[in-house]
Amino acid sequence: MRVINFNPGPAGLPLPALERARDELLDFQGSGMSVMEHSHRGKEYEAVHDEAIALLSELTGLPSTHQVLFLTGGASQQFAQVPMNFLTPDTSADYLMTGVWSEKALDEAKYYGKPRVAATTVQPDKHYTRVPRQDELSLDARAAYVHVTTNNTIYGTQWHAMPDTGQVPLVADMSSDFLWKKMDLSRFGLVYAGAQKNLGPSGVTLVVAQKDFIAKGRKDIPKIFRYAVHAENNSLYNTPPTLAIYLVRNVLAWMKDVGGLGQLEAWNRQKADLLYGALDTHSGFYRAPVERASRSVMNVVFHLPTPELDAAFVADAKRQGMVGLKGHRTAGGIRVSTYNAVTVENVRTLVTFMEHFVKTRG
Amino acid sequence: MRVINFNPGPAGLPLPALERARDELLDFQGSGMSVMEHSHRGKEYEAVHDEAIALLSELTGLPSTHQVLFLTGGASQQFAQVPMNFLTPDTSADYLMTGVWSEKALDEAKYYGKPRVAATTVQPDKHYTRVPRQDELSLDARAAYVHVTTNNTIYGTQWHAMPDTGQVPLVADMSSDFLWKKMDLSRFGLVYAGAQKNLGPSGVTLVVAQKDFIAKGRKDIPKIFRYAVHAENNSLYNTPPTLAIYLVRNVLAWMKDVGGLGQLEAWNRQKADLLYGALDTHSGFYRAPVERASRSVMNVVFHLPTPELDAAFVADAKRQGMVGLKGHRTAGGIRVSTYNAVTVENVRTLVTFMEHFVKTRG
Repeated sequence: MRVINFNPGPAGLPLPALERARDELLDFQGSGMSVMEHSHRGKEYEAVHDEAIALLSELTGLPSTHQVLFLTGGASQQFAQVPMNFLTPDTSADYLMTGVWSEKALDEAKYYGKPRVAATTVQPDKHYTRVPRQDELSLDARAAYVHVTTNNTIYGTQWHAMPDTGQVPLVADMSSDFLWKKMDLSRFGLVYAGAQKNLGPSGVTLVVAQKDFIAKGRKDIPKIFRYAVHAENNSLYNTPPTLAIYLVRNVLAWMKDVGGLGQLEAWNRQKADLLYGALDTHSGFYRAPVERASRSVMNVVFHLPTPELDAAFVADAKRQGMVGLKGHRTAGGIRVSTYNAVTVENVRTLVTFMEHFVKTRG
Repeated sequence: MRVINFNPGPAGLPLPALERARDELLDFQGSGMSVMEHSHRGKEYEAVHDEAIALLSELTGLPSTHQVLFLTGGASQQFAQVPMNFLTPDTSADYLMTGVWSEKALDEAKYYGKPRVAATTVQPDKHYTRVPRQDELSLDARAAYVHVTTNNTIYGTQWHAMPDTGQVPLVADMSSDFLWKKMDLSRFGLVYAGAQKNLGPSGVTLVVAQKDFIAKGRKDIPKIFRYAVHAENNSLYNTPPTLAIYLVRNVLAWMKDVGGLGQLEAWNRQKADLLYGALDTHSGFYRAPVERASRSVMNVVFHLPTPELDAAFVADAKRQGMVGLKGHRTAGGIRVSTYNAVTVENVRTLVTFMEHFVKTRG
């Protein structure tokens, strides 16, 4: 029996994508071997690779100015790879600080240039409960790029309108909210996302890059780190993580099958409305720290009146088949991650549990 | 029906390792979710992670001076990451040149320091048919490390005794011959291997590092690229490629089940003897360019009298259920990759085919 999985990432995946993988794990399309045993330069794997790119392009309406890449090392490697490509010791980039992940991105950039904090919503207690407003951004027109973390898994905040950066390319870490809704990727210089939230297993990083932007990347860095080299080789410069990309293909095919990003957005908004509705109804018991305008649709965080009640909530939910609800160690409390594979029905089950819990323990 | 898979990598994997993955793909050990849907910080996944490390340590008798790491980006990223950690613009490392992969490793090192060619067996035609002898090495005692590619997939050569580098740490790219036999890893400063030959799917890189060596790595590089950071965090500094590591665990468990590295070595030597025996018996038809002392046990390369016969050989073999035999585009001809998952019986079938082919087409 499958549990209801609210893991923050690696996260639950759509069952049809997993079943498809299971059914052909030993014999991919009658080829007599697993997809992971195929050469990355053979026609069987290349069809999967190209289909994944085509599906992502179709789902997002990606224009030909942009290109999809499959890299590795997760967002953590992108924190370093972006400044390695686009900074020099004397140039700067603007970082918008909204939590732990943007802090890590800023720290890695310091090895390559002079990143600037162009906005921060950090509080005296080091936590964050909102993202900056446009009028709080102090942007530098000479910056090589502006870096934003679009959704903050730990603090449960999310940018609901992208910052206006003028002529400066916008680079976005979308690891935890990529493809949660219809999104216009053409406005970004570069988007990156570890697959393990909305897209597939850990082990592959999706990158969507503006071709003109990455063509201007540094040429005096190793080939393996140049976005332009991966772009020229259609992400086959070296052996890509073929099995992980195959699973991403399965998830993207599922996204299309269920109706595309418009349908996923409708479900995701419904899930968030159910959860935030329950929190607001019982705001004396469930305390949601995030300011309304910054509330994440992907990670809903809250605290119960005591850490003991937090623990009891997690334990009781687990007994009822719901797992992955414990908050990040940095923030404590409860975190409900509702990525694309979590159904509205899953969330209804949790909300019913929450209402029962407040009645019996509140 | 499964074919006989001689792919050079990604390569065939042991059927029991794949069946185990298939059987629990939707429900890992009764947890109600796939292993790839588990948190990398949860006890279920961590047990797999630690078991993979324990199995590798047990199979190789790894001493506590050394540590196993799981990284990403394949050997190609290690070509850059090794010099990034251990070179400065004014220091050098010695590279032993034996083929395309050592050339790529040398090229990436140039971005970080002054790598030296300490030996090369390149021929006027740019190809390689042997590895250097010890007396051909011109080693520098001040080198930060000596880099060797222990097996050369494209040219079918292999080092059968490791070079003596004195006090200078030896760094080895073992992507294509890691764990093919009993091996003493304690003599290496650092060993790396993309998993997709002997170990699992593409998407995870096995590293075995001497703790004292990596502790001396540079601290002025991004954290994500420091071996010491990954070592301190037991390869959980960031989200590792959990599904790929799980599959490596399955393959390592299979290695132990069948009798360990001693048994695998016996089979691998038997496979190589069968193949080279057939080539030597029919040396007028099958031309094996590699000098005897450098012949690879993992990749057996040869040419037929004409490119047309090479193509007919590949096509006829495919009709008999044997795939992956076409030589690399750089070298042409035929390449038989006989990694651990290829059975002696598979090779007997191929040798029978080769004998028939020479009779009918020779």
